[in-house]
Amino acid sequence: MVATRNPVNLGAAARAMANFGFSRLRVVNPYEVAFREARSAVGAAPLLRSAEEYRTLTDAVADCRLVVGTTSVGHRELQHSIRRLEYGARLISKALARGPVALLFGSEKFGLSNEDLSHCQWLMRIPTVSQNLSMNLGQAVALCLYELARDSKAAKVRPEKIKPALAAENEQITALLLDALRLSGYVNPLTADSTQDKVRRLVRRLNIAGRDAPVLLGMLRQILWKLG
Amino acid sequence: MVATRNPVNLGAAARAMANFGFSRLRVVNPYEVAFREARSAVGAAPLLRSAEEYRTLTDAVADCRLVVGTTSVGHRELQHSIRRLEYGARLISKALARGPVALLFGSEKFGLSNEDLSHCQWLMRIPTVSQNLSMNLGQAVALCLYELARDSKAAKVRPEKIKPALAAENEQITALLLDALRLSGYVNPLTADSTQDKVRRLVRRLNIAGRDAPVLLGMLRQILWKLG
Repeated sequence: MVATRNPVNLGAAARAMANFGFSRLRVVNPYEVAFREARSAVGAAPLLRSAEEYRTLTDAVADCRLVVGTTSVGHRELQHSIRRLEYGARLISKALARGPVALLFGSEKFGLSNEDLSHCQWLMRIPTVSQNLSMNLGQAVALCLYELARDSKAAKVRPEKIKPALAAENEQITALLLDALRLSGYVNPLTADSTQDKVRRLVRRLNIAGRDAPVLLGMLRQILWKLG
Repeated sequence: MVATRNPVNLGAAARAMANFGFSRLRVVNPYEVAFREARSAVGAAPLLRSAEEYRTLTDAVADCRLVVGTTSVGHRELQHSIRRLEYGARLISKALARGPVALLFGSEKFGLSNEDLSHCQWLMRIPTVSQNLSMNLGQAVALCLYELARDSKAAKVRPEKIKPALAAENEQITALLLDALRLSGYVNPLTADSTQDKVRRLVRRLNIAGRDAPVLLGMLRQILWKLG
């Protein structure tokens, strides 16, 4: 975090780091009051209390093998490759296997300065719908860390579903529902067979969960008892 | 946003919506002061000013075909499928083709209530490293919208690179560098040929950008002039 002004954003950055498993927060030339306030805030992340403070960016990134800057708006002079977050995050993940990587975030108002940017091998931008819309700093940090921690396979893996009801349970529900419909005069005796099929299909479409089946059966039994 | 307490979070939610191209913000039973403050904040997103306010969640989601709740912590009673953000976002994208989808965020302190949850078809959680760490509300909204707007192909597409220098430029740089090395006494005449190859390979490994070539040539010319 370079020249951060608002303590809320330092706190938000630390919280996002904890959320996604990152541990080394370095703060370069922060607005002193902001840094003090953020550290002493109620519920401040332990990560923030152990944050390292540096006077210069040169010192802060000295032990890193890759330095990546973040940017929202297209920079005046395009001196660097700018990579979209989704792709840049993959590159950073690979680079992390070879040594520490610094991911820089500039101040709320001005972003990273040209001097800050001169320390970067390349830049990363968050793909907002319009490049004119800058992001909130705390949200930008959260998005970058989320994407870095992202499991690329997770979007395809179907999570374990809630166990569906057994066919026998569905059939029991169907039977009780049909009894209730017959007792209510809903079923026309001439079309009783097709009604039964319709009700059976309807019950199957409900995708009743296993644990809901006894509840529904209990309800239907109660209704049947009342119907006579 | 259901029962949001902090105006900063309402503002952050609106800003993230603008960033990722979402336009309909509905606010259910907010803390009145927070809502008023957030709307009147300097630089408040126009989206926030046009936010619709509802007294009940039932009314707020009435026109939606899918209602998804967000949750950080494992709920006491597991009444719903809980899907990871990456997977849930894919399902929501598909559902959006069939009609409006409501994505619910609860209050900062308590999240969504059991009653709120009873309106949801399923729940979505952000994959933080530990389920005990709750996320900042504004960051959680930003992550969900980012993932919804995410282009799954973007992680694989290599962005257009900065144009590399022409081979002719690399060769010119090589030649001037060799001249400078000769004038400096770096080159041993007996191994001059292999030195030339080494320098050529080194220059190619630098991957000089097209726009940097004239700069480097200028530097080398200046050095050569000085060297004699």
